[in-house]
Amino acid sequence: MAEKETGRVEAFSDGVFAIAITLLILEIKVPKLSHDISPAALAAALLDLWPSYVAFLLSFFAILIMWINHHGLFNMVRRVNPGFLYANGFLLLLVSFVPFPTSVLADYLDGRALNTAAAFYCGTFIFISIGYNLIWQCMVRGDLLQHGISTAHVRKITLAYRYGMAVYVLATITALFSGYAGLGMNLSLWVLWAVLGYRPSPTAS
Amino acid sequence: MAEKETGRVEAFSDGVFAIAITLLILEIKVPKLSHDISPAALAAALLDLWPSYVAFLLSFFAILIMWINHHGLFNMVRRVNPGFLYANGFLLLLVSFVPFPTSVLADYLDGRALNTAAAFYCGTFIFISIGYNLIWQCMVRGDLLQHGISTAHVRKITLAYRYGMAVYVLATITALFSGYAGLGMNLSLWVLWAVLGYRPSPTAS
Amino acid sequence: MAEKETGRVEAFSDGVFAIAITLLILEIKVPKLSHDISPAALAAALLDLWPSYVAFLLSFFAILIMWINHHGLFNMVRRVNPGFLYANGFLLLLVSFVPFPTSVLADYLDGRALNTAAAFYCGTFIFISIGYNLIWQCMVRGDLLQHGISTAHVRKITLAYRYGMAVYVLATITALFSGYAGLGMNLSLWVLWAVLGYRPSPTAS
Amino acid sequence: MAEKETGRVEAFSDGVFAIAITLLILEIKVPKLSHDISPAALAAALLDLWPSYVAFLLSFFAILIMWINHHGLFNMVRRVNPGFLYANGFLLLLVSFVPFPTSVLADYLDGRALNTAAAFYCGTFIFISIGYNLIWQCMVRGDLLQHGISTAHVRKITLAYRYGMAVYVLATITALFSGYAGLGMNLSLWVLWAVLGYRPSPTAS
Repeated sequence: MAEKETGRVEAFSDGVFAIAITLLILEIKVPKLSHDISPAALAAALLDLWPSYVAFLLSFFAILIMWINHHGLFNMVRRVNPGFLYANGFLLLLVSFVPFPTSVLADYLDGRALNTAAAFYCGTFIFISIGYNLIWQCMVRGDLLQHGISTAHVRKITLAYRYGMAVYVLATITALFSGYAGLGMNLSLWVLWAVLGYRPSPTAS
Repeated sequence: MAEKETGRVEAFSDGVFAIAITLLILEIKVPKLSHDISPAALAAALLDLWPSYVAFLLSFFAILIMWINHHGLFNMVRRVNPGFLYANGFLLLLVSFVPFPTSVLADYLDGRALNTAAAFYCGTFIFISIGYNLIWQCMVRGDLLQHGISTAHVRKITLAYRYGMAVYVLATITALFSGYAGLGMNLSLWVLWAVLGYRPSPTAS
Repeated sequence: MAEKETGRVEAFSDGVFAIAITLLILEIKVPKLSHDISPAALAAALLDLWPSYVAFLLSFFAILIMWINHHGLFNMVRRVNPGFLYANGFLLLLVSFVPFPTSVLADYLDGRALNTAAAFYCGTFIFISIGYNLIWQCMVRGDLLQHGISTAHVRKITLAYRYGMAVYVLATITALFSGYAGLGMNLSLWVLWAVLGYRPSPTAS
Repeated sequence: MAEKETGRVEAFSDGVFAIAITLLILEIKVPKLSHDISPAALAAALLDLWPSYVAFLLSFFAILIMWINHHGLFNMVRRVNPGFLYANGFLLLLVSFVPFPTSVLADYLDGRALNTAAAFYCGTFIFISIGYNLIWQCMVRGDLLQHGISTAHVRKITLAYRYGMAVYVLATITALFSGYAGLGMNLSLWVLWAVLGYRPSPTAS
């Protein structure tokens, strides 16, 4: 039963991740121009959408990394409890929210309000980070972990999540003064995780 | 065969729940402002979207609770029959409908027509409640329940569903006079279910 | 391998059905009225959307019936071949197309162009019917059926699919002269299938 | 563990494919005409949408072929590694991007800027082809292949992917001068794959 339970929560979560990541494309709007625009003018209009492409790439990468991370967490779970279900639900709420700040970023990345858009975007990831921390605390305190995971490994992951949250807070504050710098900090963290092959599970590499 | 059948219906239902919950975000529209808006003006515009955030949070929470509840019902099912399939289809119809009243609520939550929007929103949940009651009656009368579930437990769940429907009816009537009070009643019911760890299945806690 | 293959095609198809059925709601647009509209005016505006509700209900019911039918077909499949994959792909193309004629119907159901919208809607189901016939022919001629299905049963299903196609053709022609009559014929067919518990599989009831 | 890992990546990928293919329909917009348009005028307006239908059909077919191909690749995978996960993530990024060039194509297929729209569309498939090549290189170099796949077969697939990329590059260049010719080249390649029953896996036909 426990395994089936975990499997169904995992499948539902994967569904939300997959839908959120695929909905991102809806934020890139086809330029509404005269039907008789010249080929060169359409090419220019497509290039002018660069803020939308940047926002799309950034969020796609972020959700992909989060999915891999989520994947790693579930590999360490032996069973689920109500607290875990709600912490996971809180995380899914935020994952499904990501297309909105992405859209805001796409619209204002090359405008005067860049810093606000970037801070709003980075700030979303503070909440996402809180979500991951909540899930992880539920797992550790609720005795949901697979057997045979060392205390040292648990401590390492706890620290990694706290470090992640600190970077997001810093990035959000930075973004208020320089949007690009804030976004760059977020991106650096994700690249770091991808390059280091960061994954919570000791069994999944 | 029976188990595969149940599994496929469950997977399809989970798909609809996951898509409906993720589509909610499409209702939050990026404020269409001048591209050269100031950072402070964008921040103000994002704050002005609070009715959209409230509606999004409310409906995300509602669908999540419904999914967990649905989950619990399916854990009690031994096999499916056509009546069950159509009752479940009726419920999925309503789940997929939720983004629309959510969107109406988001648009009119801070306007003069709040009560109408709130009653429309609460009224949707009366139908959802009818859906759950139908599924549950199909399970009980069609002998679809897992073996070993006590009559007392069945009666308890029957009462819980009836109680839920009564609250939704009351909330809808209340909303006609005070939108916030009606919404608050809906929310209280959901919080109660979440806090009590309300789940139909005796095996799933 | 064969079973895994079948399972993956089934899961992909279920995904398309679940997404198409859930996307239908996006066709119901929140009435864009003055923010300070009165409660009664909003209620009137919500009632005025009845063509959208009708189109939504009709298509939700149609896709649900189609999914149950598809479900029944896959229960009879032992293995898949390329022809079957492409016939199934053709069907999924049409399933994913359904939200468009639904939207056309919603917009013109109460206008002068009703007959065109209804014929377009009904005509879509002729193609869907061709899709089911193709899948079924692939199954029968390609020796993809489970063992132990009698020739009489195969003939019965072949006839049922041909009968369905004939009704859709007739409904489309009728709709050109009376939109409501055409839609009514489609609906009657679906209700008939639902009431008779029509399902291709002999093992799935 | 390895098998569960592969299965979860496969399910997530299938989700993205299924959502992207179903979102294509959102690009076909209902013609916004006077509510009192005549039946003949609505019929004409629906026919006028032919560029949207062509783009929809083209992209649906392309994503379906890609999914079958992806399917074949995963049938050859024994286990996954981080490089494979990111190469697959890159491919999914592009799959989820397809609705955008499809939409651009639908808007400009019958306009002066056709060549730009077609080249943008064909160019997307160069990147998709790079994605498949990356996944395949990860599989071959990272020792992720099922045992018992001959070197000759591996070489054949490597060549097929390189050939595909060459056709896409050529099609994109051609599209700059003749949009229809470029699109025709893409389509020919997909038809060829479908007709030849092209699939990487030796075990899946």
